[in-house]
Amino acid sequence: MKISLGAQPIAYPLPVFVIGTYDTNGKADAMVAAWGGICASEPPCISVTINPNHQTFKNIQETKAFTVSIPDRQHMKETDYCGMVSGKDRDKFQDTGLTPVRAEHVSAPYAGEFPVVLECRLFDIHEIGTARQIIGEIVDVKIEEAVLGYDRKPDLQKIGAFAFDVMKMEYYSLGTPIGKAWDAGKKFKQ
Amino acid sequence: MKISLGAQPIAYPLPVFVIGTYDTNGKADAMVAAWGGICASEPPCISVTINPNHQTFKNIQETKAFTVSIPDRQHMKETDYCGMVSGKDRDKFQDTGLTPVRAEHVSAPYAGEFPVVLECRLFDIHEIGTARQIIGEIVDVKIEEAVLGYDRKPDLQKIGAFAFDVMKMEYYSLGTPIGKAWDAGKKFKQ
Repeated sequence: MKISLGAQPIAYPLPVFVIGTYDTNGKADAMVAAWGGICASEPPCISVTINPNHQTFKNIQETKAFTVSIPDRQHMKETDYCGMVSGKDRDKFQDTGLTPVRAEHVSAPYAGEFPVVLECRLFDIHEIGTARQIIGEIVDVKIEEAVLGYDRKPDLQKIGAFAFDVMKMEYYSLGTPIGKAWDAGKKFKQ
Repeated sequence: MKISLGAQPIAYPLPVFVIGTYDTNGKADAMVAAWGGICASEPPCISVTINPNHQTFKNIQETKAFTVSIPDRQHMKETDYCGMVSGKDRDKFQDTGLTPVRAEHVSAPYAGEFPVVLECRLFDIHEIGTARQIIGEIVDVKIEEAVLGYDRKPDLQKIGAFAFDVMKMEYYSLGTPIGKAWDAGKKFKQ
């Protein structure tokens, strides 16, 4: 039997994205976002919702650029810290020891330690109630060569990405392959 | 060392959402979406990108309503089938044996077998290149009582949700808790 949890923003899985930006003085900042996901293929775009009071929002308005990194579980604590404090008060790269690296195609930084990074150009900003949904055009995806499999495809186990449980306020690991898409459902084809 | 994968829509984790709608004759349909995520808190909203040629897009335009279900891995094959065929040609509920249940608050169906369902009212439609991003206001979240933990919170292990690997075209399971949010990062606080 199903019970109601009311009108709440709940879904599984929720991502843990680290958004990298520069301010007008070139100071690198990083914030954490769980409201977001891929939103288009042509052009390839990703959306992340950011409170307009955040430093990251101001930075993106000015530079029209940001990165979205997929952190690995080895840097879960550093990632969490980036969500705990404001870039207005702290230098999160300095505090955590993460290494700011300038993106190749856009004016935005990312932490060199994270295995996957999307370089994004600001594409659009949508108002959704009090929130602002930033749409970034993905101009390049970079990945650590060490997390590729023998087939040269990204290997989920090696990437070590993790997800966010908004109901328990916990991070959790990702698991193992359970089936092939556009194939597992063939048994129902008539 | 990082290598470039080019401009591609890649992120980890990507969700597996099942979008439930009725057509004008009241026929229940279900499609699978991996482009999407929570996008606002006030009001709580979820976004899913849907090709405007899909039956689901037409249905949402007409009914202004849809559901987003989180399928469990026990129904991975049924879910995959919903992404393989079109509701224009097939009755996916009949083909898979999934049970269409009418949502309580909106005019849309969901599969009763899935553990979590978000009842959504159409809030907005955004154009992003050739794609259409559907924004749904979450008016209620329903969950199987059996997947709650002792603390009455949704238990990720019991829910059994899974995710999508777009690079390998595979589904994969979710793992186990690895840390507490807004806590694990405290060690870097000064």
